[in-house]
Amino acid sequence: MNQKLGNQTVRFATSPYIISRASVVGTKEGEGPLKDTFDMIVSDDKMGQVSWDLAEGAFQKTAVEIALKKAGLGNNDIEYILSGDLQNQCAATHYGLRETNIPFLGLYGACSTMVESLSVGSMIICGGYAERVVCLTSSHFCSAEKQYRNPLEYGGQRTPTAQWTATASGAAILAKEGIGPRITHITTGKIVDKGITDVSNMGAAMAPAALDTITAHFKDTGRTPEDYDLILTGDLGVTGSEILCELIKKDGYDIEKKHNDCGKMLYNIESQDVHAGGSGCGCCASVLCGHILTELEKGNYKNILVAATGALMNPLTVLQGESIPTISHAIAITI
Amino acid sequence: MNQKLGNQTVRFATSPYIISRASVVGTKEGEGPLKDTFDMIVSDDKMGQVSWDLAEGAFQKTAVEIALKKAGLGNNDIEYILSGDLQNQCAATHYGLRETNIPFLGLYGACSTMVESLSVGSMIICGGYAERVVCLTSSHFCSAEKQYRNPLEYGGQRTPTAQWTATASGAAILAKEGIGPRITHITTGKIVDKGITDVSNMGAAMAPAALDTITAHFKDTGRTPEDYDLILTGDLGVTGSEILCELIKKDGYDIEKKHNDCGKMLYNIESQDVHAGGSGCGCCASVLCGHILTELEKGNYKNILVAATGALMNPLTVLQGESIPTISHAIAITI
Repeated sequence: MNQKLGNQTVRFATSPYIISRASVVGTKEGEGPLKDTFDMIVSDDKMGQVSWDLAEGAFQKTAVEIALKKAGLGNNDIEYILSGDLQNQCAATHYGLRETNIPFLGLYGACSTMVESLSVGSMIICGGYAERVVCLTSSHFCSAEKQYRNPLEYGGQRTPTAQWTATASGAAILAKEGIGPRITHITTGKIVDKGITDVSNMGAAMAPAALDTITAHFKDTGRTPEDYDLILTGDLGVTGSEILCELIKKDGYDIEKKHNDCGKMLYNIESQDVHAGGSGCGCCASVLCGHILTELEKGNYKNILVAATGALMNPLTVLQGESIPTISHAIAITI
Repeated sequence: MNQKLGNQTVRFATSPYIISRASVVGTKEGEGPLKDTFDMIVSDDKMGQVSWDLAEGAFQKTAVEIALKKAGLGNNDIEYILSGDLQNQCAATHYGLRETNIPFLGLYGACSTMVESLSVGSMIICGGYAERVVCLTSSHFCSAEKQYRNPLEYGGQRTPTAQWTATASGAAILAKEGIGPRITHITTGKIVDKGITDVSNMGAAMAPAALDTITAHFKDTGRTPEDYDLILTGDLGVTGSEILCELIKKDGYDIEKKHNDCGKMLYNIESQDVHAGGSGCGCCASVLCGHILTELEKGNYKNILVAATGALMNPLTVLQGESIPTISHAIAITI
C-alpha cells in the first residue's frame, strides 16, 4: 500500500521507474558546464518558429520525441502527459503538445513544475491508473523576458540578484515497470509568502518555500541530510542557496555539504554573465533530465532529494504592490 | 483495484464522496435563475479588495471556508488542495489560497479546471494518498475581461457568439468515506485544435473537445446516453451546445434530450444580456457545486456525466494568428 507519512509526504508501495528522459537546451545552455549531458543543443533558439512563444513549445515537443525514441516507445504507449510552463495560460505547453494525442493534465507550479509533474505522475502510476506517463516542462529566456520584464530590444540592466531564465525543456518517462532511477517519496509543498516584493530576487523569495518543504520531508520521513548524497534545489541560484543553507541550520539540519542548486550548475556563472544563476522551469528540468539522472545511473549518486521551487506571482500583482507567494515540491530518487 | 478502461477512462475501485461543496457568486450571477442554489451571493464583486485580481482570490478563499464549515472540518483536516484559474500565472489561486497552509497542487485547464481538479483529486483519494482533498477553481468577469479583451471602461461591443465570464468560485471536498454524491469514473481529455481562431466564439472552438471526450467516455465504458439522466457540458454556451449535439449524432449518439450546459443555465440569457451564455472556470464550478449537486442529493438525478471544456490559448498567441487548442475532461457522478 502507498503510505502517507506525516502531513505532506507519500511513500510509494512500488516506486515508479524513470525509464527514459531527454533534455533539449538552447545555445547559451549548450555552452555551459553541463553541455555534454544534454540530448540536444539547438543551433537556433527560435526552433524555426515565427515567435519565441511557439519556439518554447517546440522545445517541449522535441524533448518528448527524444525521450520516447530513447525508450523505443511511441505516443500510443503513453497514457497521460503532464506539463505546464511560465507563459500566460501555459501556452507553450498547449501549442507544443497539441499534436501528441495523449490524455493531458495541465499543471502550473512556475519553476517547481518539473517536480510537481513527477509527483502527480508518480501518484498516477502508483495508483494503478497507468503503466507509463510523460512528465515535462520548459522555459525560454526570450518568451519569459518579454512577458515578465522588458522587451529584449530594450536591453534593460539586470541586478546582481537577478537570475537568467533557461532556454530548455526536460522530459521524463515514468513507468510502473522497467529499468532506471526510482521515485520513492514525494513531499508536496504549501504556498509560502514571507513578504518579499523584489522580482529581481527570486532566490530570496523562494528559499523559505524550499526550507518549508525540505524540513517537512525530514520530519515526515525521519530522514536526515545524511540519508542523501545530494540535496538539490530547483533554481534558488547563488543568493537563494545561501539563504536556504543558513535558514535550515536553525531547524537543526546542516545541508551545506550535500546541497547544490540547478541554477548554480547550468551556467558558468561568472563567464556567462548570468548574475545569480539560472532559473525558469526548464532549468531544473534540463539539469535533472541531463546531468543528475546520468550521475544516478552511473552510480555516482545513490539517493538524492530534489526540491524544485517556484515563484507564484505574475507581473501585474507585483506592480500592484503584492508580495511573492512561492512553493517547493520535493521528490526522493534512488537507484 | 482501480481499473483503466480503454484509452482515457479510469473506474475507481471505491468511488470518492463529495462530502461538502460551496459556491460563491457575484451580483449578476445572483440575479440569475440559479440564485437559490448558491451558498453566498456577494454584494460587492470586489470583495473589499484593492483589485479585481485579488477579489477573485477572495472568492476562492471564501468558497473553501464555507465548504469546510458545512462539513464541520478545518484546514488541518485537508491533505491536498487543487486549484487553478484564468489569470496569468494563476494568480487568483495563489493569492486566494496562500494562507490555507494546505499542500497545494496548481492546475491549469482553463474553463475545464473544475473537472480536472475533481479528476486529479479523485485519483489522489483512490490511490490511498489522502482521506480528504479540496478541489476548486474560480473566474471573475472583471479580471478576465481586462486581461483577455479590453479595459472595462472601454465598453467594447460584444459579438453574438461571445460568452460572459462568470464571477464565481465553486469548491468541493472529496473524501474517501462519508455521505454524498460519488465520482465513479474520470475520462481525461486530449488537446484538440480544429483551427478556430475567433476568440469571441469559444463555443465553436471547444465543442470538438467535448465531442472527443464524451465519445471516448462512451467507447471506454460501453455506456450510452441512456445511462445518464444528464450530460452536462462546462460552458459551451448556446452556440457550442448546438454544435456538440449536431456533431455527436455523426458518431451515433443522440444526446439532445439529455444535454444541458452550465453556460446556458447560469444566466437568464436574453434578459441578462449575456449573448451566447456564461463561461469562465467559475461557471461550471458554481453551477456544479450549487444547482447540480443539490439536484443529485435530492434524487432528481441519479447518474450524470459532467464534461467541462477549456480553451487553452492566450491573447498573444491569437494575435499571432494561431488557432485555439482546447480540452475537455469528464467525470461520471452517481448518488
